[in-house]
Amino acid sequence: MIQNIVNALERVRACAPLVHNITNYVVMNNTANALLAIGASPVMAHAKEEVVDMVNIASSLVINMGTLSEKWIESMVIAGERAVDRGIPVVFDPVGVGATAYRTEAAQTIIERCKPTVIRGNASEIMALSNANVKTKGVDSTVSSDSAIDSARLLAHETNSVVVISGETDYITDGTRVVTVDNGSLLMPKVTGMGCTATAVIGAFAGANEDTFLATVAAMTAMGIAGEIATEKSSGPGSMQMNFLDMLYALTGEVVESRAKVTSAN
Amino acid sequence: MIQNIVNALERVRACAPLVHNITNYVVMNNTANALLAIGASPVMAHAKEEVVDMVNIASSLVINMGTLSEKWIESMVIAGERAVDRGIPVVFDPVGVGATAYRTEAAQTIIERCKPTVIRGNASEIMALSNANVKTKGVDSTVSSDSAIDSARLLAHETNSVVVISGETDYITDGTRVVTVDNGSLLMPKVTGMGCTATAVIGAFAGANEDTFLATVAAMTAMGIAGEIATEKSSGPGSMQMNFLDMLYALTGEVVESRAKVTSAN
Amino acid sequence: MIQNIVNALERVRACAPLVHNITNYVVMNNTANALLAIGASPVMAHAKEEVVDMVNIASSLVINMGTLSEKWIESMVIAGERAVDRGIPVVFDPVGVGATAYRTEAAQTIIERCKPTVIRGNASEIMALSNANVKTKGVDSTVSSDSAIDSARLLAHETNSVVVISGETDYITDGTRVVTVDNGSLLMPKVTGMGCTATAVIGAFAGANEDTFLATVAAMTAMGIAGEIATEKSSGPGSMQMNFLDMLYALTGEVVESRAKVTSAN
Repeated sequence: MIQNIVNALERVRACAPLVHNITNYVVMNNTANALLAIGASPVMAHAKEEVVDMVNIASSLVINMGTLSEKWIESMVIAGERAVDRGIPVVFDPVGVGATAYRTEAAQTIIERCKPTVIRGNASEIMALSNANVKTKGVDSTVSSDSAIDSARLLAHETNSVVVISGETDYITDGTRVVTVDNGSLLMPKVTGMGCTATAVIGAFAGANEDTFLATVAAMTAMGIAGEIATEKSSGPGSMQMNFLDMLYALTGEVVESRAKVTSAN
Repeated sequence: MIQNIVNALERVRACAPLVHNITNYVVMNNTANALLAIGASPVMAHAKEEVVDMVNIASSLVINMGTLSEKWIESMVIAGERAVDRGIPVVFDPVGVGATAYRTEAAQTIIERCKPTVIRGNASEIMALSNANVKTKGVDSTVSSDSAIDSARLLAHETNSVVVISGETDYITDGTRVVTVDNGSLLMPKVTGMGCTATAVIGAFAGANEDTFLATVAAMTAMGIAGEIATEKSSGPGSMQMNFLDMLYALTGEVVESRAKVTSAN
Repeated sequence: MIQNIVNALERVRACAPLVHNITNYVVMNNTANALLAIGASPVMAHAKEEVVDMVNIASSLVINMGTLSEKWIESMVIAGERAVDRGIPVVFDPVGVGATAYRTEAAQTIIERCKPTVIRGNASEIMALSNANVKTKGVDSTVSSDSAIDSARLLAHETNSVVVISGETDYITDGTRVVTVDNGSLLMPKVTGMGCTATAVIGAFAGANEDTFLATVAAMTAMGIAGEIATEKSSGPGSMQMNFLDMLYALTGEVVESRAKVTSAN
């Protein structure tokens, strides 16, 4: 597994996949920087007049609903449907689903129409996606990751996607297999958009690797390792965010091999 | 007073208030990071379809008009009116008011409809709000803070709010009392959105503390102390912004006690 | 030439020009910070109701089409036409032109209506502007800078503007003269929006200096030198971005004199 993760990282660097992001205003800058640091080529474009053309040259599409509005949902759907037609991966981040009815409906629309290949959220979000009774508090999780595994499996089955619950331990499942990644640090949720960054990095790995499940595990491992080394070098969330980009950029196969805490847990 | 400020900070950390921000594109990332660093939970959402739901779960609402447009003003008003109904604090940042007629009218509409609990601006902005004859130069102040005190008192009286003039010395007034905070550094205005960050941090303190005047004084003190320690550690505005988040995250009651330069000046 | 560049930098600091930016969501924060660091006063405003008022008090206008949509194009044109009327410099960044038909058309509209004084792009973008047959890959260049010089000269002649191709070597031409700047580092394209930052910094120099060609050369030299010193101090793109702002802020005439690699190459 670890060797496959290393290979997946090397393919990102070799391919420099063009990752088309329709994402939220808060994280556009840091997700673009994370994509550049890992070796991908980011593009942000949201006008309905151009998203089809952009998807046509992209290796993957990332849809993140952090700061929604009608026109953006419309563009997400147009882009997502074109990505499905082209057969490129669609990675979906249902930010804050469950916090408002509007977000819950938007997430359902996007899942139906854009058929995401990968869905990444925190435990609250993943539970909200498969169970309308869960309330999330804004965009931060209110439940622990392991309590959401059954929801994640179910969601993966129903949507035929790879589902990621990110948290202190990350869980990646395709409905059958479950892999856990225990890298990362407690400082990561103190930087805004670390989850959104994980979603974007999954877009990079999925755009450069055929095996979406492996690509997702590799992306979460790279995120976690870069985050934990960055935390060791940092005195707070400000320096952590800076060091995180440096670490993502400098990440080597050797570091992945010595650090990765990846387990098959099904 | 200092002990009350320390207690106010501790309540932010204990409550982790959900702060709903309808703010400008330029500062979304840094204000979200500042809110996380101080111990709050930020959410950014602006669609008119969901702002009421978001206000319903929020502890406070921050309205910042830095990058205005019609739809955003509409959402600010809807959210603000709901916040008034619920009785949660509304903190308003009239960025660039006075620079264009559009901004001046928008600020008046927001004050009328959203009845802000706290208004924070630089000296030019506060003067422009209470006197249509003052011209601001873009978003930076062209007058000194102390020349705006009378305007701030008047504005506080007229709007029944706490008004903050931020600058080298910060002035906080409820129309009767005036408190000054002399923390901070001259490097702070060289980082974009430090004023907007102050507004967001006031949102965190006001969301966790009943006494809005104290919450505002405490927020400005925390900002100033974090900024001045960060400046001591930095060689320019880039490193200052990073260190500022680290300092906000690490801020303790002891540091506040030893650094705070807060005076009642009425 | 070098002494003129130093003088141009000093004029930016002395004038603190108000630079009105209608730019993309990804880079608003870092371009605002770069403008503050170099000594300018940035303002971001895009509502069609206020852009004329903002242009009326601005020293220059920066139009950047990174994250386009209909309303933003409309505002860019309104602002640009007012800037032409007032005779203030218009600096245009045709981000991703050639990647989609929508961008190509928008760029043509902006050039026709806003008559930019300076156009800055990477080699792919400049070639796409003067030759519809060039395809760009998202927003990153796929061709080398020197292969685009003829396109840049032609574009400068046709549009009566100063054209910049930025890359490992920067080329600045008014159609007749060609100046190259060899400062900078290979880490710079690993930080998102470094090109957009260059465009904004040109806006600062052009807003404070009569000679637009010299202002543009000076801006690219300042960018390159700040970038190369920052890179020497950094271990990756995260720390580079931070150090870049510190260096831009600390840049002195002496450093420019000792570092500048500027050649007339026509």
